[in-house]
Amino acid sequence: MKRKTTARKARRPLIGKLAVFGVGLIGGSFALALKRAHAVGKVVGVGRSRANLLAAKRLGIVDAIARDAQSAVGDADLVLLAAPLGQMAAILADIAPHLGSRTVVTDAGSTKQDVIAAARKYLGDKFSRFVPAHPIAGTENSGARAARADLYRDRNLIVTPEPETERTAQALVARAWRLCGMRVTEMSAVAHDRVFASVSHLPHLLAFAMVDTIGSAPDARKLFGFAAGGFRDFTRIAGSSPEMWRDICHANRDAILAALDAYQQELEELYGLIEQGEFEALTQLFARARAARKRYLVQR
Amino acid sequence: MKRKTTARKARRPLIGKLAVFGVGLIGGSFALALKRAHAVGKVVGVGRSRANLLAAKRLGIVDAIARDAQSAVGDADLVLLAAPLGQMAAILADIAPHLGSRTVVTDAGSTKQDVIAAARKYLGDKFSRFVPAHPIAGTENSGARAARADLYRDRNLIVTPEPETERTAQALVARAWRLCGMRVTEMSAVAHDRVFASVSHLPHLLAFAMVDTIGSAPDARKLFGFAAGGFRDFTRIAGSSPEMWRDICHANRDAILAALDAYQQELEELYGLIEQGEFEALTQLFARARAARKRYLVQR
Repeated sequence: MKRKTTARKARRPLIGKLAVFGVGLIGGSFALALKRAHAVGKVVGVGRSRANLLAAKRLGIVDAIARDAQSAVGDADLVLLAAPLGQMAAILADIAPHLGSRTVVTDAGSTKQDVIAAARKYLGDKFSRFVPAHPIAGTENSGARAARADLYRDRNLIVTPEPETERTAQALVARAWRLCGMRVTEMSAVAHDRVFASVSHLPHLLAFAMVDTIGSAPDARKLFGFAAGGFRDFTRIAGSSPEMWRDICHANRDAILAALDAYQQELEELYGLIEQGEFEALTQLFARARAARKRYLVQR
Repeated sequence: MKRKTTARKARRPLIGKLAVFGVGLIGGSFALALKRAHAVGKVVGVGRSRANLLAAKRLGIVDAIARDAQSAVGDADLVLLAAPLGQMAAILADIAPHLGSRTVVTDAGSTKQDVIAAARKYLGDKFSRFVPAHPIAGTENSGARAARADLYRDRNLIVTPEPETERTAQALVARAWRLCGMRVTEMSAVAHDRVFASVSHLPHLLAFAMVDTIGSAPDARKLFGFAAGGFRDFTRIAGSSPEMWRDICHANRDAILAALDAYQQELEELYGLIEQGEFEALTQLFARARAARKRYLVQR
């Protein structure tokens, strides 16, 4: 039998050119993961910090640093907006006139309704190729040096498409993130923002408030000195970036206020139970919470 | 030169007989640490669970299981009360008539004013040999099997003596805990209960309330499903024992209500800042909290 030899054609990567705005932990890890999956040809980085971009280039996260938005996005197949929420609108306004006719734009913002509103406003008829998304991943570190190819493995990506969103654009974005190792879930932007107000934004606010309350006490040093491991865990998220959380409070104001209000009512109830000596009801509340945590969080 | 040989007399241990009420994580680890330090002769265990006591004996934590309080404490040098707070008063009432004339009693309760009140009530003229104390240590596990000889290494013990407390009794207790590896600090019972209402009791209540709020939502499964690592850390302490926390709320009611009230005011302020769009003040609050956490908790 004669073997048939054919010149193997190099497979074209999923994304010929990727432009990343904000080459930090999130954007940098996306680029690294796609490179490892051989799913991207060229990565171009854009950002405010020249030093960070140079580090990203040295680390092989980006292949080039774009001089301006125009040269970055003109011939890009995919644009990822991984900059802080507060910069999203300005970047969208900047890139809108230069987007190629088939360029797909996506973002990694922690809130969705506000980014969608900005995209709708600035992208005009290109809004249909904007795919709003939120990768649920992160560490306490930031910047290009914190980027890791495996950051997204087995984590969740939430896509919140709008009625106008093109199916092919959404499919490209979902496929790219799946190649990074993520599970992809779809929900509405409203549902997303409500869910994350509860399970992320509110806990961060509570931790910031807790540490600020104790830190403002005259005997703060003594108080912190006796804090045990539980307190450290409880307040770890109060080590997050103040600017990022200001942006999130701004972007997701209504859902956060609703979640905070519901929580304040729960605290009122708790206060009443302790004050009135309703220890049976108190024990039941604690037991319900422990059981819920065990059922949903521990056994996964 | 002729070597002088003397029969080396076995050094008497610091504590000839130790009686431990509640041979769980706290009481069992105390016994193990003292045994490792060769600071105890015989350890006798007392408790409600026969199975736990048998496990403690098998594991070498206790040398004997006492039939009753009388035989346990009669000739003991030191008695450690490491039972749940809710049982302290009953145990004190039980042992009071049988305590030897030089037996020192101490406890490991998470709150101090209530245990002191019970000791004062039941121990009568033996109250001067009661040394109220609180070892700041623990894990999520409980029972004799969770006990570890190194649980207390480099942790804090707080002693809250009363005017009547005998110096020699206090010195014995401090020395025993130091042999377990602890740093010993003294403060008033009132100060202790206020400090721990802030840095321990309140955070536990907040975590229980957080998990209960989300767990009670109709879409609880979905909400928990998207919770990230920050949420898990923040709510880890909501996995604690409901009965223990009921007891603590009962025992430290006033200080806990004061801490909860202060925190609710902080949340009111936070709500106002977000509602009014005071983002500069919000950023400052977050930055203050992050700086305080870094200064007091991260760099130790």
